[in-house]
Amino acid sequence: MLTGRLIEYDEAGDDVRRIYDDIKQSRGVKDVNNFWKALANHPPTLVRTWESLKEVMAPGALDARTKEMIYLAVSISNACEYCIRSHARGAAKQGMTAEMFAELAAVVGMANETNRLVAAWQVPVDEAFAGTLQF
Amino acid sequence: MLTGRLIEYDEAGDDVRRIYDDIKQSRGVKDVNNFWKALANHPPTLVRTWESLKEVMAPGALDARTKEMIYLAVSISNACEYCIRSHARGAAKQGMTAEMFAELAAVVGMANETNRLVAAWQVPVDEAFAGTLQF
Amino acid sequence: MLTGRLIEYDEAGDDVRRIYDDIKQSRGVKDVNNFWKALANHPPTLVRTWESLKEVMAPGALDARTKEMIYLAVSISNACEYCIRSHARGAAKQGMTAEMFAELAAVVGMANETNRLVAAWQVPVDEAFAGTLQF
Amino acid sequence: MLTGRLIEYDEAGDDVRRIYDDIKQSRGVKDVNNFWKALANHPPTLVRTWESLKEVMAPGALDARTKEMIYLAVSISNACEYCIRSHARGAAKQGMTAEMFAELAAVVGMANETNRLVAAWQVPVDEAFAGTLQF
Amino acid sequence: MLTGRLIEYDEAGDDVRRIYDDIKQSRGVKDVNNFWKALANHPPTLVRTWESLKEVMAPGALDARTKEMIYLAVSISNACEYCIRSHARGAAKQGMTAEMFAELAAVVGMANETNRLVAAWQVPVDEAFAGTLQF
Amino acid sequence: MLTGRLIEYDEAGDDVRRIYDDIKQSRGVKDVNNFWKALANHPPTLVRTWESLKEVMAPGALDARTKEMIYLAVSISNACEYCIRSHARGAAKQGMTAEMFAELAAVVGMANETNRLVAAWQVPVDEAFAGTLQF
Repeated sequence: MLTGRLIEYDEAGDDVRRIYDDIKQSRGVKDVNNFWKALANHPPTLVRTWESLKEVMAPGALDARTKEMIYLAVSISNACEYCIRSHARGAAKQGMTAEMFAELAAVVGMANETNRLVAAWQVPVDEAFAGTLQF
Repeated sequence: MLTGRLIEYDEAGDDVRRIYDDIKQSRGVKDVNNFWKALANHPPTLVRTWESLKEVMAPGALDARTKEMIYLAVSISNACEYCIRSHARGAAKQGMTAEMFAELAAVVGMANETNRLVAAWQVPVDEAFAGTLQF
Repeated sequence: MLTGRLIEYDEAGDDVRRIYDDIKQSRGVKDVNNFWKALANHPPTLVRTWESLKEVMAPGALDARTKEMIYLAVSISNACEYCIRSHARGAAKQGMTAEMFAELAAVVGMANETNRLVAAWQVPVDEAFAGTLQF
Repeated sequence: MLTGRLIEYDEAGDDVRRIYDDIKQSRGVKDVNNFWKALANHPPTLVRTWESLKEVMAPGALDARTKEMIYLAVSISNACEYCIRSHARGAAKQGMTAEMFAELAAVVGMANETNRLVAAWQVPVDEAFAGTLQF
Repeated sequence: MLTGRLIEYDEAGDDVRRIYDDIKQSRGVKDVNNFWKALANHPPTLVRTWESLKEVMAPGALDARTKEMIYLAVSISNACEYCIRSHARGAAKQGMTAEMFAELAAVVGMANETNRLVAAWQVPVDEAFAGTLQF
Repeated sequence: MLTGRLIEYDEAGDDVRRIYDDIKQSRGVKDVNNFWKALANHPPTLVRTWESLKEVMAPGALDARTKEMIYLAVSISNACEYCIRSHARGAAKQGMTAEMFAELAAVVGMANETNRLVAAWQVPVDEAFAGTLQF
């Protein structure tokens, strides 16, 4: 931790406990991760982050596993160890296999490579891509 | 373009034409994108990049749509306009809907936010995450 | 350290000592941080970096605390642990409170999120923003 | 825009209008920016993003100008043109002067430089920085 | 430009003219680039940036061409169009050929790919790499 | 490691051993680095990455040392510790001296600074830079 402490349930205030209870129930876990215990040093950030995350990660047009894998892909691209480790577990819990992980890692690597080739050559956007995408 | 020209099929050498033919056949398109026409200024990069991309993006443990969406997510995170525009179309072609795109964008935004919250607070890795992930 | 050693005052040459003395006096500290002791392996980098930093971080139109907080915000965004830890202390020394830190972290997270939403949707610049900003 | 359209008030649904009204009232503006008109293609993202932003950017331990400047600093560091242009105006509206902007830009540049010097030399964290920061 | 104007020689103050003269003489050019004309809105930034750049880019243990190519590589990795375009010309002026550019772009792409593979797999540093590098 | 194990030669399959043999012979080393032992958990990634890297890093228009230094510069800019440590050694093996390293680090820092100054001021591309670069 840079500052503050990991706030445990027993010492937490009511607003923090409400979020911890919701996290534990939503995820079926006995305790919350350090991420939440760190954010609990600033309850408004804890509340807002959890409520945003719960909404964004809920199954919708994309299933929970795909969402976790996208999260993981971004975290790998940003080299955030904590995020990689926690979301790899989250994705695995949703069914990501070792083979899927390896393919995800390969795609993240490749995208980072070609993003730079595009920058290097300053490739102009194709006319077909310039307009608005219709689904 | 920073340098070189977009190399069209008619003016391309045999090694470049072979790749263009393969791209067109693999993707069922009449012409290749500017990205490939730019890389054709350096045939070894064209050949290697296409062959790597074809292998990495082929359906495997992950289907083609999920792979395109991961590619898109990384490209959004890196703010590569060309890559966002081309892979959004690639993903849409594989079945990504407008709603899926919007959810993907939300996850990418959220991951970038929480990656920084982790850095800000210097959250220590949970003991449960420190070990090797078993699938 | 990747290479070299942390250069202590006693073993340093005159050019390095002159900088160390200036750092200690400017900051009112008894010893310089590891950052400077590392750069002392290449005196021209030490001299240039310190003189630039001293100029850039001096109170001007922005006060020292605001400058330290901007520095910290960028370092969080880039996930540089050393820089986060040292500039959080620098900002705290200038009056940043725990609450200010938490709000700063929240803004950094939010900016990283919306920066990617802008990229995802490829939001066009408003006409009102396209021109030159007049203060 | 990558996809969708900029959603104007007249064509917007009730949930979107409610947010537009709140933005216009909170900021004292006649119309909302393109950012919000783009997010309105996915109302849940519009609602969540606005409510998060309103909370995070509200004056608290940090005043509104400092928050806008931190936002701007991160957006410069990430090279997001839209975000730089809109938040530079937001900061100016809160009192950022041309001189303050120039100093902010200098700090962002300097932080990006020293963040990489730290990485290059792999500077070890000082013992004094390793512990928890007490304010 | 976000703000200010491109400051031309005729309207510049003495401190700015001194730098413009030095740039023109050092580089053997008739006029300075827009980068310098933009920084001239804040003379202290102009002076400091030019003097730092002149020192850092001067031939030393590395020749001018290698330095320009490293600068270009970083700018590609960061996708800074202005920087890519200006430093590609700078490197070409120092002897970088089209083939060298293409190889440089390939290395930058590859490094960005493998940097992420390392993050994905969380590869532990080899014992042989953990210590201090001796040249 | 996030997942899998470092795969040693004795327990590796034939496809992995073939790559290990090639790496050891190409580089004149007795054992391969952890990077390769990690990728061996997914042989297609191992094979593709090695073959790509071998091609990209082979001396061509750029010599091996310059390529290693460009790789190192990108890795520093991305703050990938593993990559910095391994490629600093790779570059040193090809003749990079301590002084060259220090100058490389300074250029990487400087490029990261000016990349952000360009973004901050939104410097317009000079007419002379907008066209295609002729070598």
